[in-house]
Amino acid sequence: MSDFPPSSDGRPDARPLYAQVESILNARIAAGEWQPGHALPSEPELAQELGVSHGTVRKALDALERRHLIERRQGKGTFVARQTSERARFHFFPVRDLQGRQVEPTSTALSLVTTPATEEERAAMHLPADALLHRVRRLRAKDGVPFMLDETSMPAAVFPDFSVPAGREPMDELYVVYQKRYGVTVVRSEELLSADGASPEVAAVLEMPAGAPVLIMERRTLDAGGRMVERRTSWLNTARHRYVSVME
Amino acid sequence: MSDFPPSSDGRPDARPLYAQVESILNARIAAGEWQPGHALPSEPELAQELGVSHGTVRKALDALERRHLIERRQGKGTFVARQTSERARFHFFPVRDLQGRQVEPTSTALSLVTTPATEEERAAMHLPADALLHRVRRLRAKDGVPFMLDETSMPAAVFPDFSVPAGREPMDELYVVYQKRYGVTVVRSEELLSADGASPEVAAVLEMPAGAPVLIMERRTLDAGGRMVERRTSWLNTARHRYVSVME
Repeated sequence: MSDFPPSSDGRPDARPLYAQVESILNARIAAGEWQPGHALPSEPELAQELGVSHGTVRKALDALERRHLIERRQGKGTFVARQTSERARFHFFPVRDLQGRQVEPTSTALSLVTTPATEEERAAMHLPADALLHRVRRLRAKDGVPFMLDETSMPAAVFPDFSVPAGREPMDELYVVYQKRYGVTVVRSEELLSADGASPEVAAVLEMPAGAPVLIMERRTLDAGGRMVERRTSWLNTARHRYVSVME
Repeated sequence: MSDFPPSSDGRPDARPLYAQVESILNARIAAGEWQPGHALPSEPELAQELGVSHGTVRKALDALERRHLIERRQGKGTFVARQTSERARFHFFPVRDLQGRQVEPTSTALSLVTTPATEEERAAMHLPADALLHRVRRLRAKDGVPFMLDETSMPAAVFPDFSVPAGREPMDELYVVYQKRYGVTVVRSEELLSADGASPEVAAVLEMPAGAPVLIMERRTLDAGGRMVERRTSWLNTARHRYVSVME
């Protein structure tokens, strides 16, 4: 097991072997050593390189596949997964119509500013004292009717020279841009939801009465390396839409 | 492959072999042929019985384990999983405090009635014309402060002689009762969420002003056989609580 990095506190790693192999391969993807689209070595090659059994490598690859970090293509091999537009639009956009069906809204950037992170933001995102955040406001509409507003904040150091076309729909979903332009692969978003009365500002943008009930989503998003790359607050008018959550 | 049941339309099953094996084993659990706690045959025994490779059986068992239908115990074998109280309380109860931490509320049954299903309910749950539904209203409180009300409807034919202790906390979580008493294993819940003003009745129970914003969850719950065994509407006062959703 001489190929395995020692754990940071010097104690032996107590996790199952496949989980340790998963971490090693995950780190290569997170560090950009293996870019999206990159073909992984074969299972026997990986087994030999890491000094573990074929079965252990396969179990590690199974776990990476379930986390959407790699893709196996029948007869072609195993590849680092690209953040697909489909996954960004449906999996990470859990908004449906009243019957629970997928919706494909337009998404328009209302504004983009870059300003210093607040103390609370620096603490939450583990940022240095002089950190800057890009702040994007976007409006989603269906058939010309706006139903969701969101404000996304991301560290300027992670996403230098970030831009969005003002007042127009971007070509790519944000998470696709993160990966294509910045090599940042989003693997997990966590949201805390609440109901509240819409502020006058939110109500005006969503064309609903001020104080009317609105669904609020507070999101934190992690990349393949476990780093928080985004915070987001969204306001959903649930007159014609629902938020979907599946437990299994 | 003579051990495999023909598909209902007579066409060959196009799914991967492991998925077909998963379905066969799933059906034995769903039908109660293998009860919770039952020890499964060994992998080689299953491979021989079904005429597939050891690897295919293992992949099918991996899938059943991910769906929480079986449990592997180191050195002891593989068992049909019991619905644990922990899974019922945390996984199927996605309510957290304002910081996203788990909460352990009290749960009190307010009422239980058994009445005919409405036409809408019969259509949604695929029930016959004379179907009856049990309807349980429960109130969750933390430190004596009520924060969530729910109304659960379940077919009386699936849950005969169902009872809850009126005005007291039940011994077991509902999903634990479903399995222990009725052999019904819950594997999936889907919820559609919205924000709305609390009705006078909901507001009174949750001790909030009528019309104040409340988070509404509409749930449908499926068992291991894919049958809808429950519908539920919940009202959450988000003054001190949040609904958590994880995408990964």
